[in-house]
Amino acid sequence: MTTVAVLLFEEFETLDVFGPVEILGRLTELYKIHFYSLHGGLVKNKHGVAIDSLKLSSIDKGIDIFLIPGGYGTRIEIRNAALIDLISKIAADSKYVFTVCTGTALLAATGLLNGKKATTNKRAFDWVAGTNNQVNWIRQARWVVDGKYYTSSGVSAGMDMTLGFLNDIHGHAFAMELASQIEFSWQEDKDHDDFYRQ
Amino acid sequence: MTTVAVLLFEEFETLDVFGPVEILGRLTELYKIHFYSLHGGLVKNKHGVAIDSLKLSSIDKGIDIFLIPGGYGTRIEIRNAALIDLISKIAADSKYVFTVCTGTALLAATGLLNGKKATTNKRAFDWVAGTNNQVNWIRQARWVVDGKYYTSSGVSAGMDMTLGFLNDIHGHAFAMELASQIEFSWQEDKDHDDFYRQ
Repeated sequence: MTTVAVLLFEEFETLDVFGPVEILGRLTELYKIHFYSLHGGLVKNKHGVAIDSLKLSSIDKGIDIFLIPGGYGTRIEIRNAALIDLISKIAADSKYVFTVCTGTALLAATGLLNGKKATTNKRAFDWVAGTNNQVNWIRQARWVVDGKYYTSSGVSAGMDMTLGFLNDIHGHAFAMELASQIEFSWQEDKDHDDFYRQ
Repeated sequence: MTTVAVLLFEEFETLDVFGPVEILGRLTELYKIHFYSLHGGLVKNKHGVAIDSLKLSSIDKGIDIFLIPGGYGTRIEIRNAALIDLISKIAADSKYVFTVCTGTALLAATGLLNGKKATTNKRAFDWVAGTNNQVNWIRQARWVVDGKYYTSSGVSAGMDMTLGFLNDIHGHAFAMELASQIEFSWQEDKDHDDFYRQ
């Protein structure tokens, strides 16, 4: 069973979390998802969502996929040293790390992306890129893979990236079948970016 | 402020809920979202999600949009007379009713769709259509509008439909701007259906 740890914080972006969770969550025989936050308990956002979570410090070393969403809350949490420290330890130990949208800024704050390629939300690109100039920021990409790090563009790009990951691990037919089950027109070329603006 | 009531039940489909919630939830000046379930409290599904909710019976008559998601739980809840009775009352009083995926089966069980056009998930179409033969079921559609009832195909079609609703209410540029903010390639033709199989 592949274990998935989803990070939550106040003002996370709803679909950054639940797009990938819809896709991996359907694979109940293969992937097991748990939600975590720094303090545990209900985590809320301005969309009216309140999700129950476990304490982040309870994660042991065996996590396979660590998913870091974006959202307005990243602007606050990037200065939360206790959270960034835990993200750093968990991300370093995880087999894969996914970031969606401005979630890439939280991962970049750990230094783990230094010297690596990564992308993020197109409208918040300059803010994210400005937080760490040691990262090789890719402006034109739906998502970017560099070793174990999968980083995506804004919000719904997290779904394309998650299907891209399933393609990398389980093959193209597997990913296409999942996309079809959820009636999702998968944009399967990670280098094609409809939202890039020069 | 347009009030949105989202119905939850055990084994709801994650993205049926959080696709539309992402889109309407961004419009914090215009739309206010609350989550409801028959008994209130945390509602879980097999994707590992646990969402806090209010009691469905606490809804007063002023709801503008009532959103009914699909998911495996609909197969159970369609026989839950107390839930269907409340759905019937709230849907009748609401200005608009949205259903995503097999959520259409729960609305159809109230009789409110009798004589009206509606659609649902492509893979579960025969089951849903078989629950009520008084509905004019449309097999080939991304989503269907009949008066105040917006019914969509499977899972991610709920996002296209919600953007379609914003288009109907606020105009095309407004819907396109929202789609661009979440880097979503909106499939804006409700009659175009990539997942229809003859």
